[in-house]
Amino acid sequence: MFNKISIIGCGLIGSSILRAVEEKKIALKISAYDKSLSVTNYLKKNFSAEICINISDVVKESDLVIIASPLSSYKEILLSIQSSLKENVILTDTGSAKKEVNKIISNLNLKNVNWIASHPIAGTEYSGPEAGFSSLFKNRWCILSADEKATKDKIKALENFWIKLGSKTKLMTFEDHDYVLSLTSHLPHAVAYSIVKTAINNQDKFKDDVIQYSAGGLRDFTRIAASDPLMWKDIFIDNSENILKVLDNYSMNLNEIKDAIRNKDSKKLLEIFSSTKKVRKEIIEAGQDTDKPGFGRK
Amino acid sequence: MFNKISIIGCGLIGSSILRAVEEKKIALKISAYDKSLSVTNYLKKNFSAEICINISDVVKESDLVIIASPLSSYKEILLSIQSSLKENVILTDTGSAKKEVNKIISNLNLKNVNWIASHPIAGTEYSGPEAGFSSLFKNRWCILSADEKATKDKIKALENFWIKLGSKTKLMTFEDHDYVLSLTSHLPHAVAYSIVKTAINNQDKFKDDVIQYSAGGLRDFTRIAASDPLMWKDIFIDNSENILKVLDNYSMNLNEIKDAIRNKDSKKLLEIFSSTKKVRKEIIEAGQDTDKPGFGRK
Repeated sequence: MFNKISIIGCGLIGSSILRAVEEKKIALKISAYDKSLSVTNYLKKNFSAEICINISDVVKESDLVIIASPLSSYKEILLSIQSSLKENVILTDTGSAKKEVNKIISNLNLKNVNWIASHPIAGTEYSGPEAGFSSLFKNRWCILSADEKATKDKIKALENFWIKLGSKTKLMTFEDHDYVLSLTSHLPHAVAYSIVKTAINNQDKFKDDVIQYSAGGLRDFTRIAASDPLMWKDIFIDNSENILKVLDNYSMNLNEIKDAIRNKDSKKLLEIFSSTKKVRKEIIEAGQDTDKPGFGRK
Repeated sequence: MFNKISIIGCGLIGSSILRAVEEKKIALKISAYDKSLSVTNYLKKNFSAEICINISDVVKESDLVIIASPLSSYKEILLSIQSSLKENVILTDTGSAKKEVNKIISNLNLKNVNWIASHPIAGTEYSGPEAGFSSLFKNRWCILSADEKATKDKIKALENFWIKLGSKTKLMTFEDHDYVLSLTSHLPHAVAYSIVKTAINNQDKFKDDVIQYSAGGLRDFTRIAASDPLMWKDIFIDNSENILKVLDNYSMNLNEIKDAIRNKDSKKLLEIFSSTKKVRKEIIEAGQDTDKPGFGRK
């Protein structure tokens, strides 16, 4: 139980945390801030938390400060709040990439601050506070990466916080997190953007047909490619090193398929397609998806 | 209403047609054939249709012959059944590519046969007769491509057949079909295979982590990449010209994203990501997916 929790940035993720924290009464006091006036007004109407107009006010006396805004806003936020942070505060975030953020925090050389990054692997293709809901984190993983100066009891406290929101937690180094996520999330997004851009070309006379018959595979990519552009722009820049390396491997694998198609190499194609089929089983066994048929849904 | 319908190949698609035809009583007589002995035994146990052991028997006196087997098996099947086909029969299939098949049929120079290709855009990541179900085609599109020698009333009869199975039908030329499907279905599959092969590398010490945290995007690709290898090998070889062209455009778009990441070009990335976000709206407006949040599902 925290005395006071503060949330900075109340879009899909931040507002979902706010809803869950209010609903589950995880803190005696809750404060929230968003730089957008319309979001601020929405928060005032829909939440009982203290909604601050001034960013430095929001973190005052807070035991847990959660930054849930785009990665590119972190530096400005940290500069604005650093002198108002309570001694021994837990400072966390919800970002999808950690390397650059970690550098910023390290350069600020904050004293008596427990920096423990969080990455709740949860979200939808919608954004904004109206899209949030309190059960967003239920049964989802939250990966934590702790700065070396963070104390063990604070790491435990943050883990408990996410567990109260329904999540399963995992500790990982900042570097490992960025590499694993470049494969599980950042690569799929880069690919989805490219595929939708290729398939839906406004100059193509078949554009309407492509949309009409998109249920054969394309449809699922349009969902991923509809994620928040601002958030994803930041992730790609932040984790660029890993993503570029992974994209190079990906291009190699794609060229292997291209060559096999060009050479009408049945054996090679069968080999590739059979190898990826096995992976599906492992995903289901790891409880990361159901085994219900997913195509052909209405 | 047909007097007799015959189905050749009873995997996911063929057995689903068989189930629907029996359930909806669309024909007085139904016959089915599968070259696999275990499938044949399954059919005998689970269906009231006439299950044939000899392929030339299955099409005898049939008004509608449906080939629902992998594309690479068509030639052998057509050679086996051509002399047993009833005069003025409707010959159709369920394949995902049409060009090569059309060539085979044209070379056979069949007399008094109405060749009208069907492509029901329906399926799951599972295969085999146990995976079929009678409502598979409900509310799904079925694209028909008619040979010039097919008569109008036969085209209408085949359209009605699919409508009775619950589908919406659309007439398209063979060439247009292959191009549109290369974008909506074949490209997404090529990409999904490459991405799963890139992300899940048995040599990578993070392999288990990648599977564990696959909900951030990767999971959805593993589903597509689990489709039937044999069927997809055939599609890629059959529609190779379109697919290779489309993959080249795709690589160009991917390189554009790579360059933007390398140059940390925020403006360009935002521009790309915003353009693909709009497409999602069009897909939903075309009734091809729901607007319910699809990430974060359990």
